[in-house]
Amino acid sequence: MTEKTLAVRPETPLLDMVDVPADLRKLKPDQLRQLCDELRAEMIDAVSVTGGHLGAGLGVVELTAAIHYVFNTPDDRLIFDVGHQCYPHKILTGRRDRIRTLRQAGGLSGFTKRSESEYDPFGAAHSSTSISAALGFAVANKLSERPDKAIAVIGDGAMSAGMAYEAMNNAAQAGNRLIVILNDNDMSIAPPVGGLSAYLARLISSSEYLGLRSLAKKMSSKLSRRVHKGLARAEEYTRGMVTGGTLFEELGFYYVGPIDGHNLDHLIPVLENVRDAEEGPILIHVVTQKGKGYGPAEASADKYHGVSKFDVVTGKQDKGKGGGPPTYTNVFADALIAEATADKRICAITGAMPGGTGVDKFSAAFPERSFDVGIAEQHAVTFAAGLAAQGMKPFAAIYSTFLQRAYDQVVHDVAIQNLPVRFAIDRAGLVGDDGQTHAGSFDIAYLATLPNMVVMAAADEAELVHMVHTAAAYDDGPIAFRYPRGAGTGVALPETPEKLEIGKGRIVREGRQVAILSLGTRLAEAMKAADTLDAKGLSTTVADLRFAKPLDNDLIRKLMSTHEVCITIEEGAVGGLGAHVLTMASDEGLTDAGLKVRTMRLPDVFQDQDKPDRQYAEAGLMAPDIVDKVLKALRHNSTDIEEAGARA
Amino acid sequence: MTEKTLAVRPETPLLDMVDVPADLRKLKPDQLRQLCDELRAEMIDAVSVTGGHLGAGLGVVELTAAIHYVFNTPDDRLIFDVGHQCYPHKILTGRRDRIRTLRQAGGLSGFTKRSESEYDPFGAAHSSTSISAALGFAVANKLSERPDKAIAVIGDGAMSAGMAYEAMNNAAQAGNRLIVILNDNDMSIAPPVGGLSAYLARLISSSEYLGLRSLAKKMSSKLSRRVHKGLARAEEYTRGMVTGGTLFEELGFYYVGPIDGHNLDHLIPVLENVRDAEEGPILIHVVTQKGKGYGPAEASADKYHGVSKFDVVTGKQDKGKGGGPPTYTNVFADALIAEATADKRICAITGAMPGGTGVDKFSAAFPERSFDVGIAEQHAVTFAAGLAAQGMKPFAAIYSTFLQRAYDQVVHDVAIQNLPVRFAIDRAGLVGDDGQTHAGSFDIAYLATLPNMVVMAAADEAELVHMVHTAAAYDDGPIAFRYPRGAGTGVALPETPEKLEIGKGRIVREGRQVAILSLGTRLAEAMKAADTLDAKGLSTTVADLRFAKPLDNDLIRKLMSTHEVCITIEEGAVGGLGAHVLTMASDEGLTDAGLKVRTMRLPDVFQDQDKPDRQYAEAGLMAPDIVDKVLKALRHNSTDIEEAGARA
Repeated sequence: MTEKTLAVRPETPLLDMVDVPADLRKLKPDQLRQLCDELRAEMIDAVSVTGGHLGAGLGVVELTAAIHYVFNTPDDRLIFDVGHQCYPHKILTGRRDRIRTLRQAGGLSGFTKRSESEYDPFGAAHSSTSISAALGFAVANKLSERPDKAIAVIGDGAMSAGMAYEAMNNAAQAGNRLIVILNDNDMSIAPPVGGLSAYLARLISSSEYLGLRSLAKKMSSKLSRRVHKGLARAEEYTRGMVTGGTLFEELGFYYVGPIDGHNLDHLIPVLENVRDAEEGPILIHVVTQKGKGYGPAEASADKYHGVSKFDVVTGKQDKGKGGGPPTYTNVFADALIAEATADKRICAITGAMPGGTGVDKFSAAFPERSFDVGIAEQHAVTFAAGLAAQGMKPFAAIYSTFLQRAYDQVVHDVAIQNLPVRFAIDRAGLVGDDGQTHAGSFDIAYLATLPNMVVMAAADEAELVHMVHTAAAYDDGPIAFRYPRGAGTGVALPETPEKLEIGKGRIVREGRQVAILSLGTRLAEAMKAADTLDAKGLSTTVADLRFAKPLDNDLIRKLMSTHEVCITIEEGAVGGLGAHVLTMASDEGLTDAGLKVRTMRLPDVFQDQDKPDRQYAEAGLMAPDIVDKVLKALRHNSTDIEEAGARA
Repeated sequence: MTEKTLAVRPETPLLDMVDVPADLRKLKPDQLRQLCDELRAEMIDAVSVTGGHLGAGLGVVELTAAIHYVFNTPDDRLIFDVGHQCYPHKILTGRRDRIRTLRQAGGLSGFTKRSESEYDPFGAAHSSTSISAALGFAVANKLSERPDKAIAVIGDGAMSAGMAYEAMNNAAQAGNRLIVILNDNDMSIAPPVGGLSAYLARLISSSEYLGLRSLAKKMSSKLSRRVHKGLARAEEYTRGMVTGGTLFEELGFYYVGPIDGHNLDHLIPVLENVRDAEEGPILIHVVTQKGKGYGPAEASADKYHGVSKFDVVTGKQDKGKGGGPPTYTNVFADALIAEATADKRICAITGAMPGGTGVDKFSAAFPERSFDVGIAEQHAVTFAAGLAAQGMKPFAAIYSTFLQRAYDQVVHDVAIQNLPVRFAIDRAGLVGDDGQTHAGSFDIAYLATLPNMVVMAAADEAELVHMVHTAAAYDDGPIAFRYPRGAGTGVALPETPEKLEIGKGRIVREGRQVAILSLGTRLAEAMKAADTLDAKGLSTTVADLRFAKPLDNDLIRKLMSTHEVCITIEEGAVGGLGAHVLTMASDEGLTDAGLKVRTMRLPDVFQDQDKPDRQYAEAGLMAPDIVDKVLKALRHNSTDIEEAGARA
């Protein structure tokens, strides 16, 4: 494949001369257009091989090149918000040789990553962190009297998150060391929502793009150092009226824009002026087009936000064979639609991930009961709490890793008040290509520690259907159910979903000597392990606990008092199911008289991207690992007994 | 005391006729001034007995009465942000008979609380949740075609939090069912910070308060139902220019104000107009004075934000005897100042709690290295991450319960990147009067589950000094140390702080049979329990583990292999220290051969307010509880062994 790919790679004579931004800065301004064309072609070619986030990177080719051309990176700190638009940046910053390893095991991360390059001063994969981080860099420079800048590049969608606003509210102290570039493509992953989005659209439509001459004049009179400050103030007032950038200016920024983000003749002088400005912080409003410069992406509704491998000429993506089991996301969406058909109090809420969570399907069926709140998980959860308090049945469909954004709201607004908000937690456990930042490792730990909370995990897609039904029927308090990324196991889906008894697990396979207590989709591996163990003469019980909270104390008590070895297994970090089972067991003294208990969980590291199965193998959570754990426990047992006997 | 207080209670003839808002609505408008005066006097008298949040309530006496007078509570849902300004509301909504039990054991909560009254539709004690919740109520009403309103009353300080912005960004869909009242007293707990605060000040200073006539005219022409919509649009444009409320209007609100929040002649007609408006959502900008109407509060710098019992005539607060041990907060502040004197990279960050965290003291010593970011914990943590990435040593001083607001930032921006942000976690464990919402119960669980994180807890104030020093010296990644509210134990503070070895505990007392593994300030109770156990012939070891993560595996292994019973104790919920010790012990098979391990932790409920010692007694974490736990474990043991023998 590599050779074939090499054979058709685009011609990139200028790009071939650029290894790091210092090389780029040797080019003449009039060479940048060609450089950008080559950069765009190179990225399209690379992503056609790896898959990944394409549309966002295509939109910032010129902006990325212009920033590195004008600013002194890496001393000037460039922080890309979310980071999935960083592929052109990676190509320009010493990583072109590895660009075709993007998101592959052992390859480049699909996001910015500190450990990967000095040109990535701050890793970002969750949205809306860049202004806060850049402010930290800028203030640190101020304290140590370094003149270097910090530049945050943030999308309009990311601006809907509260933390971007919090950062802007604090930005004034940074002065001219902080530059925020608002990359306004009127589209993050899904079409943007909310008042801010409408506001930005009005900003653009109400003011012509500023011509270069008037822009440069305005800026030189206002922001460069040779101008008298009193004059600048008067200009500011006038300009505010003209461009209408009040929202940002009210928060303490100098607003410049809107500027065409694909026009290098505008970008370069504006960035140079901003770089040399005496005052700040400055927000540059740049208008770009997601998917720019690649026909199939421009023509696509999602602008090729995230793509699988594709054919460069036709744009046709390799979507795999299809026809396999449905994804958990789709099963959830269909199950929720079925519930909502029967109960008009059911609502669905997503934070800017309608496609990722399946809320888009729900929305098509029930538009008035579907809410995309933008990148605003905090609001999503408390809004759901308000809905629940007024008698609705809200399902907040949020990825495990993004629900972290709303932890206090889960605690303070939902759990303490015991409000029946339903949390549909997608992307639980390891997630593959997106790596460390998107793994859903901690939700069992951070939810099961909370009073009033019910925490379920689906062992397969049929169980997920039952859990959606159970959550819909449960009005006594908050309830969460987690399920992984990707396709189900292929089990038949139930015609009629069951209402599960809260806090009750099920025995999937009966044995006598070894008990495996599984939570979630490790169940399949537990069953394989049981086959192996049985073949070795170790009669093995497998239980699907279904609930991390409340635990099925009766079932656990029974299994612990009738088996020699008990193993818990879960797709989560320490402090989750295993910890709760051990706590309950020690509370009751179940381990006092020689029972061997072991917990299997995610390791205490942030795991890099790889295929999920390989990630779980690395985590030691596959069937052979379970078998190994059981055998070691049994051996440990014998040794201990012998030693104890010898000591006695 | 009760009799004495009764004797001097203010005369309140009108208030005596009001039990619930329906009674209030029977009064004539010209009686409201006197009603408010009586309400204010009653509240001052009540808080003089109970202590509590006084200044905020004083500022909203007229606003509270006016809202209940104009709106149809409880069907119209009134949500006070933070809730500590709700005392007048509680007096007017059927709880006057219990108002002198505020914040007492078994008494009224100091915040709004759903379980307390139908007039409290949403509990709020953390800031900035009210608009999201109100939007939930409003949208639920819209879906069920109920005309009832949802009214959020939110302070200007609370507006600095991202979630308020997220909610405003989504508010337009609620239409006229949502009303936000911005209670602008230019002061939350501390003076406000940031761009928004400056903006509000400009709004007020740049526009005269609108006279009643012009205000009524403007509103009737704009917002009441008899006006043609086209006309209203034109008016809107004009009004926007006049009042300058662009920031809120850009986010989708109709902006009305600023209005004098103590002038009932303005408040009542404006609220009536807003109530009857066809369009919305509407934001009413009300200007109030914190501490209004009580001389000593008005004269005080903090406007009597939170007070202890006080003398109504003189305003003199009963601050207790003084002269006892210093508070943990003060010990932290002094220790950090000492470190910062020696190392100019040390910074301190607070989220609008300079006094509560001791950052005010740090700020007095090092103003340029001190950052109050407003109510913006998300930004605080990522800003700290940026500072750390640029070589500074940031200490983010945040209460345990408020750090929940920044959980994703701790995970994504700090832990994954392994940046050396120091978390100074005040108010860890149970906190007394503030009750459920302010308890710091979950931080051990939610932090210790994270890779790269170091989690310490101080057993006394001398340990806290060592931990500040240890954190300052630790550059390998994030490190957190937790300590409780209130005064230390009175131990001598070290002249020279020690750098603790990471992941190493200490034996405080050596024994042979029973081991108590303590984390944090339960150590004193553990020592008392050890005395009792020793007296019963059970030789007891007490270890102060110091670290919840990494655990001192060597120490735990040694104690578990040499003692019959091991007890862990911590001031945190399930999933914390005990869970991690059990996990490590089961990993190593330490419990396989008959060791009895028990974990003592906070119970699985949200505990109501009480004195901390009584809360810990209720939680079962006092010395007698430890003794009891040990004895039961030993008895359980014997029984088990006997039974096992009998079965064999």
